Order: sequence, then C-alpha cells, then structure tokens
Amino acid sequence: MACESEKWVLMVTAQTPTNIAVIKYWGKRDESLILPINDSISVTLDPEHLCTTTTVAVSPRFDQDRMWLNGREISLSGGRYQRCLREIRSRASDVEDEKKGIKIAKKDWENLHVHIASYNNFPTAAGLASSAAGFACLVFSLAKLMNVKEDQGKLSAVARQGSGSACRSLYGGFVKWIMGKHDDGSDSIAVQLADEKHWDDLVIVIAVVSSRQKETSSTSGMRESVETSMLIKHRAKEVVPKRIVDMEEAIKNRDFPSFAHLACADSNQFHAVCLDTCPPIFYMNDTSHRIIGCVEKWNRSEESPQVAYTFDAGPNAVLIARNRKVAASLLQRLLFHFPPSSDTDLSSYVIGDKSILQDVGVADVKDIDALPAPPEVKDNIPSQKYKGDVSYFICTKPGKGPVLLPDKNQALLSPETGLPK
Amino acid sequence: MACESEKWVLMVTAQTPTNIAVIKYWGKRDESLILPINDSISVTLDPEHLCTTTTVAVSPRFDQDRMWLNGREISLSGGRYQRCLREIRSRASDVEDEKKGIKIAKKDWENLHVHIASYNNFPTAAGLASSAAGFACLVFSLAKLMNVKEDQGKLSAVARQGSGSACRSLYGGFVKWIMGKHDDGSDSIAVQLADEKHWDDLVIVIAVVSSRQKETSSTSGMRESVETSMLIKHRAKEVVPKRIVDMEEAIKNRDFPSFAHLACADSNQFHAVCLDTCPPIFYMNDTSHRIIGCVEKWNRSEESPQVAYTFDAGPNAVLIARNRKVAASLLQRLLFHFPPSSDTDLSSYVIGDKSILQDVGVADVKDIDALPAPPEVKDNIPSQKYKGDVSYFICTKPGKGPVLLPDKNQALLSPETGLPK
Repeated sequence: MACESEKWVLMVTAQTPTNIAVIKYWGKRDESLILPINDSISVTLDPEHLCTTTTVAVSPRFDQDRMWLNGREISLSGGRYQRCLREIRSRASDVEDEKKGIKIAKKDWENLHVHIASYNNFPTAAGLASSAAGFACLVFSLAKLMNVKEDQGKLSAVARQGSGSACRSLYGGFVKWIMGKHDDGSDSIAVQLADEKHWDDLVIVIAVVSSRQKETSSTSGMRESVETSMLIKHRAKEVVPKRIVDMEEAIKNRDFPSFAHLACADSNQFHAVCLDTCPPIFYMNDTSHRIIGCVEKWNRSEESPQVAYTFDAGPNAVLIARNRKVAASLLQRLLFHFPPSSDTDLSSYVIGDKSILQDVGVADVKDIDALPAPPEVKDNIPSQKYKGDVSYFICTKPGKGPVLLPDKNQALLSPETGLPK
Repeated sequence: MACESEKWVLMVTAQTPTNIAVIKYWGKRDESLILPINDSISVTLDPEHLCTTTTVAVSPRFDQDRMWLNGREISLSGGRYQRCLREIRSRASDVEDEKKGIKIAKKDWENLHVHIASYNNFPTAAGLASSAAGFACLVFSLAKLMNVKEDQGKLSAVARQGSGSACRSLYGGFVKWIMGKHDDGSDSIAVQLADEKHWDDLVIVIAVVSSRQKETSSTSGMRESVETSMLIKHRAKEVVPKRIVDMEEAIKNRDFPSFAHLACADSNQFHAVCLDTCPPIFYMNDTSHRIIGCVEKWNRSEESPQVAYTFDAGPNAVLIARNRKVAASLLQRLLFHFPPSSDTDLSSYVIGDKSILQDVGVADVKDIDALPAPPEVKDNIPSQKYKGDVSYFICTKPGKGPVLLPDKNQALLSPETGLPK
C-alpha cells in the first residue's frame, strides 16, 4: 500500500440474482458451516425483476467495516457476515490500479476496511429469498474487489456460509448445490446444471401472498425440523437423492411433466416435514392452498401438467409455466380467483414483465372483473373469488448469474467518500 | 318363524359414541376388508354430547331392508352396508320373545328384512366422525336384535368393514385398533385399553371450524396417500409402532405431558402425510393453524403441556385439557381469539357441557368481548381476534361405549309399523 494518508476509494458494483429451489434444502448437518443434509436444485430468477445490487469499496480512510442495506446502516457483527468477510479476505490477491495510482498487496487486505451498500429491487419483507441474493452478491463483489482468483464453485462455498441458498445464486439457469461429504465443507458447493438459455420457454409468475402471521425464520425452522421431525431423515436419505437424479434428467431433457411433478411433490414434502416438526411450522396459508388447488385442478384437466408450483419458507407461490402461452392462461386464472383490492391499480398489482398482461387481454383493473371462469371450475361453486388475498404478482423467467456493473453511475457508494450516495 | 302373516315387529334401540384418534389411522392395506397399515388409538367421546342412536327392527311384514338416516331414507345398496348386514346375519342365533309370541330360528334371519333408523345428536356435516358412530351403532344394535353371541372384539371386526374407525366406537374410554396380520382381517379388531373412569380428569373441547373448502373424503384421501406419499410407509412401519407403545404407557400412567406430546405430534404427522400426497390434501385451514398456534404458545408458557390437540380429516380441532380448570382457561382463550359472529347467541355457540362457561365467567355473548388477553400473548400484536372463524364449540369428555336403550319411547321406529316415528 502506497501511503496511509492517500484519499483514494476503490469500488466494485455487482448484481446477483435470487433463486427458487425446485428440490428443497431443509436441514443442516453443520450449523456454523451451513452444511445441508441433502442436495438441492434451484432455478435462478431473472435479475431484471428480482436481484440484489451491491457496491463494495475499500479505502485507507475507512476506519471500520460498514454496511448499508436498502439505505439503512446495519450491523456487520453477525457471525455470517464476519465469516464471509474473513473467508474472502484470506483469499485476496494483489490489486493494482495504475490510473488511480492504487497498489494493494495481498497482505494489506487484512488491515483495510470495506464499505458495503446493498439494495434489493424487490421488497425485502416479501419472503423472496433476499438473503440468498444478498450474500451471493456480497461475496461476488468482494471477491472481484479483492482480486480473488478462485473459481465460482469455491466462491459458492463462501457464500454458503452467509446463507445456505446463497451458494446457488452464483450461477444463472439451473443450479445444483452438492451437499458434500467433508467436515470442513470444502466440497459443499454449487454447480451449474444448465444455463438460462437451455430452457428459455419457461415463464415464472410469483404470487406474493398477504399474510397476518409472523413466520418462523428458516434458520430456526430447519433446526427444529432436524431436532424433532421423524420424517426428515427419511426424506433426506431415501427420497431426495432419487429426486435429484430425476430432476437433473428432467432439466437436461426439458421434460416439463417430470419437472413439474418433481417440483410440486418436493415442495409439498418440504412443507410436510415442517408440519411434522414439533411445534409444527406452517408456512403456507389458505391462499397458498387455494393456489395449489387451482393449479392441480387445471393440470389434471389437461393432458399433461402445464404449471409447476413451489413454495419456500412463506406463503408466496412461485409458479413455473411451461411456456408463455400457458403463463398467460395461468395469470388469467390467478387474476380471476385473486382480484386486487379496490384501492390497487393494475400497474402495481402485476409487476415484472407486464407484457404478459396483453396476452391475457387485461389493460385495466376493470378487465379483471370481466374475466371468464376457467373451464375446469365450471362444475364448481360459481364464485370462488378471494379479493385482496394476493398482494401482487411478479412475472419473470429463469435468468442469468452474477454480473459486474462497470457503469459508475450504478454504484451505490460515492466514489469520493465511500458513503451511500 | 311362527307364520308369515303375523304382524309383529321386533325392535332394538342402541346408542353408540363417536371417537377421536390420538394415534391416527391413515392408509389401508386392504380396501374392501378395511385393514389398516398401522395400529391406532382413540378416545371415546361422551355419547351425551356426540352419539348415534339407532333402532333396528325386524318383521315378517318388511319386504326389503330399508334405512333412514336423520329422518331421510338412504340407500343400503353400498358395499359397506351390505357387508355389515351380511356379516351380522351370518352370526345370528335363535330369538324368542315369549310375551309377544315371537320365535325366530337361526336360519330364518336370511329371509327376514330389517328396518334401520339412525340419528346423530350432532351435525353430520360437521366432520365429526359420524360414520364411526353410525356403523358401530348399526352393528351393535343388529347384533343385539339377532342375538349374535360373539364378543365385542368380533363385533368390532364387523363394524370395521363399515367404516374403519367404527371398530373403535364399540368401547368406552381408551381404545386400540390392532391392525392384525391375517389376510381375512379376523385379527384386525378393537380392544379397550382403559375404561372412561380410568382417567376422568380429562375434558374435551371441540372447535367446529367454518370452512369454505370442499374436503377430500378420508376414503379417497388415504388411498391417494398410500399410492403416492413417499413418507407414509416410513410413518406406518417405523414411527407409529413406537408411538403406540408410548401412548399405551401414557394412558396407563395418566401421564398427560406424554399423552399430549404424542397426540399432537401424531396429528401433525398425519396431516404431513396428507400434504406429502399427490395431489396434496389439506384438511387443516388457517383457523386450525391458529388454534394450534394458540395451544402451542400456551403449553410452552407453562411448566408442562396443559392441552393436547388433534385434527381428523377436516379443519375441526379436538382439544383435550388435562382437567376441568385447564379446560376453563382453554375455553377462555378460544373465546377470546374466536368470538362468535354478531348474530350468534351464547347457547348455540358453546354446546355440550355448558357448565364450564360458569368457570370462564361468561354468562352472555357480551362477556366474551370483555375477556382479557391471555398472559402469553401480551408481547404480541394486541388484537388477534378472528370473529366468526369458529362455528361453535362442544364441551365434552371421554365417555362410555355402546348401550341398549330399553325405553321404548327412545325408539326411532314405530313398534306398530316399523317405520320412522
């Protein structure tokens, strides 16, 4: 390092997607290293609609590590942040920026502090795996800043120590988190099964479900499941390994019926294990159940499954449609059953890729009231409408992995002060 | 038989309780004989509040077997009715009523028709195991009418062929249904573990939960679970056998903490298996989940469990309080969280043993609004009230087994015509 008094600030900004598991991670065999009891497979979601943007900065002027999340300073004292920072620092290399006259030697990183600013382009509280995208982005951007030369797999093992599912956010497309065997977790890493172009027909609709309930955090929930569920071990040892093989095959062959069957069954089994926990954990609510009922009834009325559903540790439904046409039919059904509250306008009720609304023939909230009942509910109670039970829908698709944002305007920290803009 | 032209009608009236499983029956190994994949244990409910009354009559005048349920004639052509009628007829003995001059030889029963009238003292549609009490009462009363000399265990094996859980309604108190090993089901019978006086502190509060959902019948539900759940076999083979032993021990020792722990865990696991079924089956709804949340929070705030909960194939909660004082505290909590709709009066909102209301200090619907929040919810959101989400509460207790009602006034059929009164 040239000199303590220098005023330079070196920054990196990156964007990292969130992901949704289609074969679920639930249960750790090592709490502090975050090592799972089974493999899991996820789909990376398009960062255009759901992502974290993080700017990391280093400067000799910084007197401590600091972090801001969505504009508010948060503590970095937690073990998970500390572990990620330590692991990345220990892998840092020499950095030289000739233009700015900056030279940081490998050994200097131990004594330099960082500023971190992170921003989610979706509501943090909505239960959409913000910690996965967040830790992945923290690790990815710090690794770039500190010139870490290890591959994405090794980085995924660092991100894993921040939040288990974060390791899967280091790749786009379809990703497997291999549970690994080693006690030190070095082989518990994510690998890409296929990139996002491999199966680009898929369209994803997320129903963000209104909820009055306080939810059990996934960290404490999965600990309680491991401690008390009589079914979780059987799931991890006997059921998941076969499903992983079958799901890899379904993805490889773009076999939607198998993909849908496995994803739905595995989501339901994860929630079954939650229910088998003592005390029981309920993440899905009546609205979640109704969405499943609607998809199951429709799938059965068709020749083969059109839509897969999966639910994480909360009531929100992630619905994967086999193609865009099916996604429009899906959104039509969802809007029919779950119209918005009277005070909600269409542009805030359906977000993300709004172009699907055109295929549905909905240009205004009034058009929702005019939607016909889907054919498969005709034999049933005429009005099965649950106004206001869904907060909003996000239309998206499988997406790419982490990227650097070289445009300095997208940085969240000031290049002069290293503080949030 | 004396003579075809005789006008006599011979009748028997019996009353049979319903029961609630605390270790659940879910899944058959033989669909037509109704043989289960695991043992189950139930508590018989006091027939004063929940029972079926059945009158069976025989007369040479009857030209076919007929049945009336709750005043409406229903078809007896179903396999389950036919099997019960055939099995009991085949075990009939000579009957003689000297006063009336009636003499029926064993062989005559094949050619005599019966009339059956059955009445539930609780709403059939409420999902309170009406078929269990119903088939138990049918078999018990027919056996008395036809002078069947076999013991209650053998009768239970006949009732089992009407509705699996019916076999457990042939005894009071605590009852085990042994799954048996034989292919013909002869050893799949119910046995009494302890009578109702053994543990007479227990008080039971049933919350009949309002529901908009159409429920999956338990017959088709358990068939789908056996066919598709990856967890049900593990439950039946590995989990239940140990729980049966532990539950028998808990009942024997009146060990409420163990009883409660096992009953709650087993109810939750049964619903977990339903969720692991493809398509998933949801019997509990948000109200069921809230009742569980309320009991779990309270139990944890006490030294040891005060209340056990269990849910059958529907959203209704069956809550077992360790004693009457606890039951009053329970009812207080339930009324606080689930006040009646404004158009409901207290006498129809809390039925059964209403004397518990005095201990709660509630004499009028207005008193419910004045109930204080339970201490364990103080730290939480102030108002967690769900008005109208419970239809009504039934206060009851463990009760006795089937009894004959010798009083002719209680008969549901006319002694002259053999038709419903």
